[in-house]
Amino acid sequence: MSTRWQAVCAYDGGPFSGWQSQAGGKAIQDVIEARLAAVFKGPIRIHGSGRTDAGVHARGQVFHFDADWPHGRARLLAALRSELPPAIQIRSVRPAAPDFHARFSVRAKRYVYHLHLGDADPFSRPFCWPLFRPLDLEAMRTAALLLRGRHDFRAFTALNGPAREDTVRELTRLDVRRRGRRVQLVAEAPGFLYKMVRSLTGVLVAVGEGRLTVAAVGEMLATGRRTPAVQTAPPQGLFLERVWY
Amino acid sequence: MSTRWQAVCAYDGGPFSGWQSQAGGKAIQDVIEARLAAVFKGPIRIHGSGRTDAGVHARGQVFHFDADWPHGRARLLAALRSELPPAIQIRSVRPAAPDFHARFSVRAKRYVYHLHLGDADPFSRPFCWPLFRPLDLEAMRTAALLLRGRHDFRAFTALNGPAREDTVRELTRLDVRRRGRRVQLVAEAPGFLYKMVRSLTGVLVAVGEGRLTVAAVGEMLATGRRTPAVQTAPPQGLFLERVWY
Repeated sequence: MSTRWQAVCAYDGGPFSGWQSQAGGKAIQDVIEARLAAVFKGPIRIHGSGRTDAGVHARGQVFHFDADWPHGRARLLAALRSELPPAIQIRSVRPAAPDFHARFSVRAKRYVYHLHLGDADPFSRPFCWPLFRPLDLEAMRTAALLLRGRHDFRAFTALNGPAREDTVRELTRLDVRRRGRRVQLVAEAPGFLYKMVRSLTGVLVAVGEGRLTVAAVGEMLATGRRTPAVQTAPPQGLFLERVWY
Repeated sequence: MSTRWQAVCAYDGGPFSGWQSQAGGKAIQDVIEARLAAVFKGPIRIHGSGRTDAGVHARGQVFHFDADWPHGRARLLAALRSELPPAIQIRSVRPAAPDFHARFSVRAKRYVYHLHLGDADPFSRPFCWPLFRPLDLEAMRTAALLLRGRHDFRAFTALNGPAREDTVRELTRLDVRRRGRRVQLVAEAPGFLYKMVRSLTGVLVAVGEGRLTVAAVGEMLATGRRTPAVQTAPPQGLFLERVWY
């Protein structure tokens, strides 16, 4: 009898081409599926809560798979953990309801984007976006308040996304918090558009650096058009922190 | 007129073959010298405070070099910082006395070794030694007290070191401190033997895991002979933290 398993994993996205399986096999999904194939002696397909782009990290990505394993979850966890590269860590695995689906059952997700004020040291540099101008955090917080809630986020997604997609989303949380030289943007929503958190980050940084007014952010929401002042934040500062079901 | 410059750098030792220049050019010294050659348009030799082995990190390695630079230290720092790989960061550079020597003028050094209780996540795994048995920190502290001070540390250096070298050193500090699941060993001395901190770490971990008694540590000091229960700790947990002049 096959069981549906729900697993949580963390990864340093730096060495990989992203979550989603690829021809070359350099995706995080490929590496985990190869490990599962070795453990179960046959191909196993995993389904993630969603893609993360090349270079984006996760502390709490969730995936599911179906497999027959009579030896209990502790031994399954040990088997999954061993021989994975150190950049990928399986944090937990447990039996799920048969109708659980890592992508379709998602209730909400939390992303955290890490900005660093000034030059970051070699140990944190791969996990943040270093900024060299002063940031007006109060202006960023005002803009974040404006962005929170249910809006058409058309202007806050990748420019080459599908034109007719429904781009209304409900941003339930968008906080700007400071910890020493680290500024963290915390975003929660039932669903996000493609590159939405990195776009929101680019907008908030433009506001913080005084290159974009809060009023211009309101206009972007209203018109659905992005101004050239806004760049999409680089992937290495972004972490998929948690997925709720 | 040539000036002697004193620089402080940090590096993630993971991608490199160690500090010391090598034929292949994959040493940290090689990468910094290549950057200096580009800035000064000619070969510049740097002298570090000492070697660090392949995989060992630094937050405060110090080196010196002689060069003519009429544009001030701020512009020199900016020039040195740009185009270095992100794993190496020049933290500061300043003119030094003409007789300053990064190696021979050292008064003391601090190393910190990072142990991690249990599986470390992908973001800290490259910078610690994960341990999976409980550690008796009080026993480790007792052993550390015994090791502190002026001793012949012959048993606490690489086994293949030169036999006739003077192996007496004065360990002025050896602390065991805990921060959550992280246990840090802090060692300070005017000078260290080859692989001494990693040997001390291996000894303290053997004591913490109950594989070696405190009395056996005293015997190692007295006889200069190492027991097979002791392994040299892996390089990736070790940081050269600070050098005093």
